[in-house]
Amino acid sequence: MSPIKTYVQEHKDRFINELIELLKIPSVSADTAYSHDVILTADAVKVSLENAGCNFVEICDTPGYPIVFGEHIIDKNLPTVLVYGHYDVQPPDPLELWTSPPFEPVIKTTEIHPEGAIFARGSCDDKGQMYMHIKAFEYMIHSNSLPCNVKFMIEGEEEIGSKSLSWFVERNQSKLSCDVILISDTGMISNQQPSITTGLRGLSYVEVEVTGPNRDLHSGLYGGAVANPINVLAKMIASLHDENNHITIPGFYDNVEELSSEERAEMAKAPFSLDNYKKALDIETVYGESGYVTNERNSIRPTLDVNGIWGGYTGEGAKTVIASKAYAKISMRLVPDQDWEAITELFTKHFISIAPAGVTVKVKPHHGGQGYVTPIDSIGYKAANKAYTETFGVPAIPVRSGGSIPIVALFEKELKSKTILMGFGLDSDAIHSPNEHFGIFNYLKGIETIPLFYKYFVELSK
Amino acid sequence: MSPIKTYVQEHKDRFINELIELLKIPSVSADTAYSHDVILTADAVKVSLENAGCNFVEICDTPGYPIVFGEHIIDKNLPTVLVYGHYDVQPPDPLELWTSPPFEPVIKTTEIHPEGAIFARGSCDDKGQMYMHIKAFEYMIHSNSLPCNVKFMIEGEEEIGSKSLSWFVERNQSKLSCDVILISDTGMISNQQPSITTGLRGLSYVEVEVTGPNRDLHSGLYGGAVANPINVLAKMIASLHDENNHITIPGFYDNVEELSSEERAEMAKAPFSLDNYKKALDIETVYGESGYVTNERNSIRPTLDVNGIWGGYTGEGAKTVIASKAYAKISMRLVPDQDWEAITELFTKHFISIAPAGVTVKVKPHHGGQGYVTPIDSIGYKAANKAYTETFGVPAIPVRSGGSIPIVALFEKELKSKTILMGFGLDSDAIHSPNEHFGIFNYLKGIETIPLFYKYFVELSK
Repeated sequence: MSPIKTYVQEHKDRFINELIELLKIPSVSADTAYSHDVILTADAVKVSLENAGCNFVEICDTPGYPIVFGEHIIDKNLPTVLVYGHYDVQPPDPLELWTSPPFEPVIKTTEIHPEGAIFARGSCDDKGQMYMHIKAFEYMIHSNSLPCNVKFMIEGEEEIGSKSLSWFVERNQSKLSCDVILISDTGMISNQQPSITTGLRGLSYVEVEVTGPNRDLHSGLYGGAVANPINVLAKMIASLHDENNHITIPGFYDNVEELSSEERAEMAKAPFSLDNYKKALDIETVYGESGYVTNERNSIRPTLDVNGIWGGYTGEGAKTVIASKAYAKISMRLVPDQDWEAITELFTKHFISIAPAGVTVKVKPHHGGQGYVTPIDSIGYKAANKAYTETFGVPAIPVRSGGSIPIVALFEKELKSKTILMGFGLDSDAIHSPNEHFGIFNYLKGIETIPLFYKYFVELSK
Repeated sequence: MSPIKTYVQEHKDRFINELIELLKIPSVSADTAYSHDVILTADAVKVSLENAGCNFVEICDTPGYPIVFGEHIIDKNLPTVLVYGHYDVQPPDPLELWTSPPFEPVIKTTEIHPEGAIFARGSCDDKGQMYMHIKAFEYMIHSNSLPCNVKFMIEGEEEIGSKSLSWFVERNQSKLSCDVILISDTGMISNQQPSITTGLRGLSYVEVEVTGPNRDLHSGLYGGAVANPINVLAKMIASLHDENNHITIPGFYDNVEELSSEERAEMAKAPFSLDNYKKALDIETVYGESGYVTNERNSIRPTLDVNGIWGGYTGEGAKTVIASKAYAKISMRLVPDQDWEAITELFTKHFISIAPAGVTVKVKPHHGGQGYVTPIDSIGYKAANKAYTETFGVPAIPVRSGGSIPIVALFEKELKSKTILMGFGLDSDAIHSPNEHFGIFNYLKGIETIPLFYKYFVELSK
């Protein structure tokens, strides 16, 4: 057994218990009710880095939640790996669908995780995946095998758009200078088949408000005679897709790269079972843009989804009211050449333009970020692939993900470094959903694989 | 000064204070959290009837909230007036838009109500209007001028569909036998121009649920590849109206009576200022079915409105989620010949049929009721008109209302009696909205006018 495997076996109970303690703190960045817990989590991450042996750790104030920065410089002439992760989590609602409370972690076995998985909000996204890096670092310090310098930057606003991180990165280029950025905030194909995410979608997230009459009205007395903001909002949302599920915003597709048939054929080789996909979601059929298959719709194509909608009476029973206002949260996933700020502007202009007379419309941009593609011939990609190959026994497959980590494009711009996305989560981990979990196998495999990335990255950099 | 005017002047402070006490009890029938208060309100109404001099009062149990029944029989050979009203109220939300708490009544003056108006949920709809009848009865007993028999039937489920009232009426035809039914649960044109409601729309109220994937999903990983229940619900709602704002449900208009151009010309004579209407609602333009004007759209035409919609993340900030489910509450206002149960079936069948593959749809009927038209040559209508003419100095105008009091059609069917809708509220009273109020003028004028209805109804019945 390799020394790292032995170390993981000896310390695995402690590794699991430490993560469980971190998961108990409800660091929901989207809801100010949890702001004290978000701060407490930053403190806990700082202590973890110190305990792991990091020789400099600080909590950096920002206009929002703090960033935990750590560094361990062994030789200025050696390469530097910058590890990014986030300690904030998604809101846990709908709470009633959790089988155990989101902030009371428990280990349960599942079909995919016979060795058990930790069920808790943030277990995979991203506390669990971020903590693998701290434990891998602990091993390298303990075994005196750290082959290069390392920096940690763990933020608390990833789930709400990383605004303060942008602010921080723009102001700290030399502090953050590095040769590669390493992130575990994505997934892999399966526990038998590792993969490396080579593309991410960008994001534009907006909130819209439609106002009709200046007060809620009795639907009997006014129904049919004034614009009903909910009906109008439904109509406006419906009009954003045509009958082929293409998005109708003028200019939306202008910078969308059309992949060649060769590239699409290459993508189609990734293992995918439409039957299993439908079965897992309990749906009769998939749904999406004409002319593209599922794995294209959720990766190389931009999309528009309503993430939340509300208006009028939503309580028990019936109320015959015409609401004064209706609201929706709408996000667009973008592909690499679509600029998120330009798309936000196109959306805003279009959405206001399609409002019928009789209502007024406001569009409030929430946040966004650029898409990203990383080349598979870089030293970082090769090092990651070698690491996975060694621990899983098979090479990793490059995949384009539909998700967004907006700061990846920012890192490239500000820090001039490529990012390597070494994810150890699975699609079935239910991140952003009730019953989020992270396999014990995945957690420990991550801790085992990461030191190999350092080793090969330094070797290949020579 | 007439004896009734004198009596009202002498007792008006007590009349106002008694109503204020009744308004303090939050009898919200739609929300089970208030069920104890609804029961308390029934008890308070019973005591009021006893105190006013009614010689038999009882609380009648039903499968739902109780009905307060009272009667005062002076001579079996004389006509009997059955007064109907309701002691339950609409939910008060959105609470933040009330300028004073909905269940802490206060008197404030407004432009329309220089003599003051009572601001509270239920002040007009219907506690205030119902209580006028109890005080008018008190006067007739006190002055020994009651010219006929009277029965009271005050229910607690009007705002949620009067299910228990139907049950009660079907089982108590002889107990409720009467010559005319008198209701104050509508409005009049203005404090200078009384009107009598001669038509009511029917109602079908349903709740729909659209289910996509079996759990909430990350919109980055699944966006564009599965049917998003909110987008689908928006599309389905949008499709319920065509480009002329006609309702697209097959068969929906089959029994809709087309009024002759003479009738429409007659309707157009009712005083109406489109400018004032738009100004009062702060809207740039009205909106509705092509080919009809505002006063037709909200009275002689059936309509479909979403009364509430919800799904996905509706909290603070942003959550990139595809919801598993989306919901809407939808009501249709119907014209007299449309059967509400048939329309509910047409809606259900159509709504399920337009669901795209990839989602499942449920439709849950909430409640409904038939529309109603009353002839203006009846004794009841003539008596009401004479009463208004005497107290306001001008005759009342007959108007068709867009609202629904579903039990009016039921009364005609079960009790074989016509209903007279003597409303004293105003459109601006904000019933079903925040800051509901009822003018002191209107309240006292109602108490003054009602005994004259009794007088003329008995005279004209001879």
